[in-house]
Amino acid sequence: MKHVGVGIVGFGTVGAGVAEGLLQGAALLTRRCGVDIQLRAIADLDITTDRGVVVPSEILSTDALALIQRDDIDLIVELIGGTGIAYEVIRQALEAGKSVVTANKKLLAEKGEELFELARQKHVDLYFGASVGGGIPIIRSLRDGLVANDITAVYGILNGTCNYILTRMAREGVDFDEVLADAQRLGYAEANPSLDIDGFDTAHKIAILASLAYGVTIPLQDIPVKGIRGLSLTDVQYADELGYTIKLLALCKKHGDKVEVSVNPTLVSKKHMLGSVNEVFNAVLVDGTLTGDTLYYGKGAGRAATASAVISDIISVARHIASATPRAAEPLPAMANSTLSLLPAEECTSRYYIRLMVRDDCGMVGRFATILGNHGVSIFAASQHEPTEAHRKAGFVPVVILTQPARNGDLVQALTEITEAGIVQTMPHYLCML
Amino acid sequence: MKHVGVGIVGFGTVGAGVAEGLLQGAALLTRRCGVDIQLRAIADLDITTDRGVVVPSEILSTDALALIQRDDIDLIVELIGGTGIAYEVIRQALEAGKSVVTANKKLLAEKGEELFELARQKHVDLYFGASVGGGIPIIRSLRDGLVANDITAVYGILNGTCNYILTRMAREGVDFDEVLADAQRLGYAEANPSLDIDGFDTAHKIAILASLAYGVTIPLQDIPVKGIRGLSLTDVQYADELGYTIKLLALCKKHGDKVEVSVNPTLVSKKHMLGSVNEVFNAVLVDGTLTGDTLYYGKGAGRAATASAVISDIISVARHIASATPRAAEPLPAMANSTLSLLPAEECTSRYYIRLMVRDDCGMVGRFATILGNHGVSIFAASQHEPTEAHRKAGFVPVVILTQPARNGDLVQALTEITEAGIVQTMPHYLCML
Repeated sequence: MKHVGVGIVGFGTVGAGVAEGLLQGAALLTRRCGVDIQLRAIADLDITTDRGVVVPSEILSTDALALIQRDDIDLIVELIGGTGIAYEVIRQALEAGKSVVTANKKLLAEKGEELFELARQKHVDLYFGASVGGGIPIIRSLRDGLVANDITAVYGILNGTCNYILTRMAREGVDFDEVLADAQRLGYAEANPSLDIDGFDTAHKIAILASLAYGVTIPLQDIPVKGIRGLSLTDVQYADELGYTIKLLALCKKHGDKVEVSVNPTLVSKKHMLGSVNEVFNAVLVDGTLTGDTLYYGKGAGRAATASAVISDIISVARHIASATPRAAEPLPAMANSTLSLLPAEECTSRYYIRLMVRDDCGMVGRFATILGNHGVSIFAASQHEPTEAHRKAGFVPVVILTQPARNGDLVQALTEITEAGIVQTMPHYLCML
Repeated sequence: MKHVGVGIVGFGTVGAGVAEGLLQGAALLTRRCGVDIQLRAIADLDITTDRGVVVPSEILSTDALALIQRDDIDLIVELIGGTGIAYEVIRQALEAGKSVVTANKKLLAEKGEELFELARQKHVDLYFGASVGGGIPIIRSLRDGLVANDITAVYGILNGTCNYILTRMAREGVDFDEVLADAQRLGYAEANPSLDIDGFDTAHKIAILASLAYGVTIPLQDIPVKGIRGLSLTDVQYADELGYTIKLLALCKKHGDKVEVSVNPTLVSKKHMLGSVNEVFNAVLVDGTLTGDTLYYGKGAGRAATASAVISDIISVARHIASATPRAAEPLPAMANSTLSLLPAEECTSRYYIRLMVRDDCGMVGRFATILGNHGVSIFAASQHEPTEAHRKAGFVPVVILTQPARNGDLVQALTEITEAGIVQTMPHYLCML
């Protein structure tokens, strides 16, 4: 039996999970994959903290770059995260002709094109199955299981922290700030939660899925991203009344020679499969030309689930190494099809949920409905509650409207016009609908 | 670029879908997989019927076995179905050192062990991704994406015809026989529907999933199989009232050194992800030691979805042929772990739904509850409607009970005793609960 030497760089939560999985599961993994995978080194600046896993002390080191150069290490697993030293580790490993497994979505979203090209030149693998969806094999499904399909669209709930916050807001009727504080206390949200709640983590992930689905490289700064920070409980409750739940939805979708890529808090019908994805779970729906809709659901983060994806990549790469057939022959994501370009945000089409504070005068609802109509925005459903005493005093009453599909640019123009006409108290607030 | 010659045996619905996908998608597939896949022959007894796909007439033939022997054909795609000629085609292809892709779940469930062993000896691939779940990449996920996990359990809705019938019974309140007749008219059920509605198709599929999850070969006749034929609308309606929906559920689950494998109409909570799988859709839930629950959902049948899975297999096998590395080194499903044996049906544990017609006398409910308790069957919830005039006249009233988890053997003993004691009109009727 062939041996493959593995070196892990980054001994944090996921690194410890991968080490544990490789050491404890060695017999099972060898039986299943026919290659003897040997964990030969772990590098981290901190090799003294107890990680809850027993590893032979002689495989621990603090020198990541020395580890890359060792002849007995065939495969580097990068689990540092971020775009600094992690980038150096991956670049140098690929330069040295070693295959790499990483879970680093931020780095791939920012430097993927360069790194994939380097892997291709060096005829080695660069695998990244844990970068999206944690333990859910969504990346493998797009690469392998759905390979015969043209992908029409990919939709997903890709951030567990946001989904946890949204689930609790809806179930308990509690404000965003209060749930966020609680999530931080429970360890479901970081002390600095921006990467999650402002949608950037979700944007990194949809950029990776878009590159797999369409072979495009979308610069992160070009993706329209809206997070859930400050999402109003009022909207969550109106959505609930209307049969919807609000999810932070990432999507990429082909329209002719353009690709729409976006991240938005979105009303999803409670009857839709994505509407019943709660707590920290993730789910991705892929619409393929042959399969139609297929859906993938599971834990999108956490030590064990992420380790599952990393180890599955290690096994695939180890098989390639053992049989001397890296998949370099296979087009890497960013290279398969580069003729598609990003659809501008104002061209994107969606159904919309709009909440307006309308002046409490006769004829106002007619006036704003007319302006919407003039811009091609059709009303699908509307809901106006009896105004409260406070509303009457302020002179504005809340109205909620659901529209038919409309161009975003048209909607924004209509809402601007409605605001300038003095029909509403402030610029109306809108959310996308799936 | 390497070329791989493909021959399709069986030019029915799926065969035509695969031919169409290979011919129309040729450029995309070549770009994605780096191998030029050439459809060089199609064999079928009937090569004159219009299949809705244009193929060069010179590649059509009626001689399947001659096709296998052609030097320019590297890969045989068996899409005849059944266990007669299909078995001969696959056996001879493997004997001739050719890799095989098939969607034939019945054949694999019955002869898989022999055929996989032959493939292993000949160092060729035998791929079967389309045999379970149609376009859903569940087999790939078990083999690759979840490879680092010990599989705790696999549950699934694996038959679209049954799920369609159950969905309509629940939504429309229509009897089984009426919906079945309608499904036959619409082409969702065969003229002879037994394979679907009696659960055998589902049993073939769960046998394949069990072999992948646990490396066991379960003889089909040993699997406890109950279909949905004659399922009472009364049960569907009681289930609905109690917050459940009835699904034909296949499961395999590890208990120490035993594996439970079964097919049963089962009450699934409407809040469970599997509870919202409706119409002809399939879904499989896999509980892995690292990932926890992951779920895979999509169309489980149909020409295009099945073709998607077959073509994905063709691409994987073609890559192996092009790089001269069949995966024979990798343990085939039935060989990875053969120390597990089947858990006898009476040892299986489940929550149960029981519907009894109880004698309309004082103290009867107490008597049957006591007998259940004596056999270790605990009542979790109960529901007794006001009896109708017809019930009163007959002298028996309907009672529905949901139990805590109990051994099937204990339940059957308790129900037998209750029947013999004259407490009920007939042997009570029960269903499993997820």
